[in-house]
Amino acid sequence: MTLGPLRRLGGAMTSFADTIELSAAGDNLWDGIVDQDYRGFGSQFGGWTGAALLKGAMVEPGAKGEPLSLSVLFTEAINEGPYQVATRLLRSGARLQFWRSELAQGGKLCAHAQATFGVRRDTLAFTDAVMPDPPPPEDKDLRTFAPPSHFGAQYHMRWATPGPRDPDLDPTAPASSLVWIRDKRDRPVDVLMLAAMADLAPPRPMWKKPTIMASSTVSMTTHFHATAEDLREVGADWILSEVHCRRCEGGYFDHELKLWSRGGVLLATSEQVAAFRD
Amino acid sequence: MTLGPLRRLGGAMTSFADTIELSAAGDNLWDGIVDQDYRGFGSQFGGWTGAALLKGAMVEPGAKGEPLSLSVLFTEAINEGPYQVATRLLRSGARLQFWRSELAQGGKLCAHAQATFGVRRDTLAFTDAVMPDPPPPEDKDLRTFAPPSHFGAQYHMRWATPGPRDPDLDPTAPASSLVWIRDKRDRPVDVLMLAAMADLAPPRPMWKKPTIMASSTVSMTTHFHATAEDLREVGADWILSEVHCRRCEGGYFDHELKLWSRGGVLLATSEQVAAFRD
Repeated sequence: MTLGPLRRLGGAMTSFADTIELSAAGDNLWDGIVDQDYRGFGSQFGGWTGAALLKGAMVEPGAKGEPLSLSVLFTEAINEGPYQVATRLLRSGARLQFWRSELAQGGKLCAHAQATFGVRRDTLAFTDAVMPDPPPPEDKDLRTFAPPSHFGAQYHMRWATPGPRDPDLDPTAPASSLVWIRDKRDRPVDVLMLAAMADLAPPRPMWKKPTIMASSTVSMTTHFHATAEDLREVGADWILSEVHCRRCEGGYFDHELKLWSRGGVLLATSEQVAAFRD
Repeated sequence: MTLGPLRRLGGAMTSFADTIELSAAGDNLWDGIVDQDYRGFGSQFGGWTGAALLKGAMVEPGAKGEPLSLSVLFTEAINEGPYQVATRLLRSGARLQFWRSELAQGGKLCAHAQATFGVRRDTLAFTDAVMPDPPPPEDKDLRTFAPPSHFGAQYHMRWATPGPRDPDLDPTAPASSLVWIRDKRDRPVDVLMLAAMADLAPPRPMWKKPTIMASSTVSMTTHFHATAEDLREVGADWILSEVHCRRCEGGYFDHELKLWSRGGVLLATSEQVAAFRD
């Protein structure tokens, strides 16, 4: 089931998508093993979980088109060991497909997702979102910081803005961040890596209150904008993650996130609402 | 099942939520009749559909907390007449609930949703999003325009920015809009009205290409930020809808939307991806 030592060697010998191995376990049912490299704090990294749910639909024999959107609910902690992904095709049309995908362990639902797939074609095209202009990822003044967890260790992260624990953080400023991110094993970006990177952002309340806070994503939605050609052009290069909090209230906060190629292509956007204890 | 002439009289004799009447049809099953006032172009207004899916979970006897997020897939056109909403509680915890909700007609799935509910409590609170500063809704220079449909007739809309067909629209500018919206019958805002208003935005490609375009929402996610007190303070006053396109490509576009109270409270945010033909 696992690639063993090969995948530990680094380099682009494998892809992130390939490391989420799913083997057929019946109609619309897939078996997998939780990847320990993407463990988080008491559960699996939500970005990996979303990618596994999305892959479950993508490997279905009847799948058509490319992912357009993915909405994930995180219902229970995911433990180490085996898991199953059950999928259901809700509707298939000429250009669009609608899927449901569920990740369970021992019969207990851990995460639930909706995904849409679409066939792209040549139409009017424009990007209105404007890429920020941070120093390049090679800038020596950028700070390196990654979440102190197994999943954090899977990424190079270079911060153009103060992180939550930086001494020069201004807690009265917006809880925003600009961070260059790259896969630590130099694997080229694919849509599943985008799905994972979309969850790679510390909880925004930490920008305002310098205490340790428990936080967990409740619901997360990602829109995939990158075409196959966009992804090929990025390859294994740095990706800019732009994150802004919108509102924090009542024990919940949300953030919006954009993933940009170095050349200014909007690869994906994502929003999530999370629960926190302060 | 319907309120008949009463609800046509205008005024706050009823609420928007009450007009989505659901009667128990079994365990986790609700019967309703499509509200013709919210018909769109060949289907039901997506905002109304999202509200009906959300209400299906809210009226469940076991429902707890207030809506935090709603993600809707629009899988099939909705016809006039009866429909059913089937719900499933995916998980219930101390503060959070996760629901699935499906709207069907004659056994055919028309829309599928995930919703999360949360119990709010006193915590750190802040809003980083910044409200734009358009002229007030009473300004005589604002343009009135609503989608030429039954659902469009349910709202007062006063535009602070050029709409898609305005002669002074600059097609090279971002496909953004600032519009004051108010329920035509002066019903006070509630969370279901926010769910509906979150879909009240013409397709963004029309800002760039002045032709008639067929467009339909594929996936839509809304985060509900308003507390019960926030909603009471708004009452039946105008709500500002701020919409920006992010990227349009391959026959799909997405937009982000914010609903603001006149006093600057961020009531809800929403994103959607839609398919279009140009």
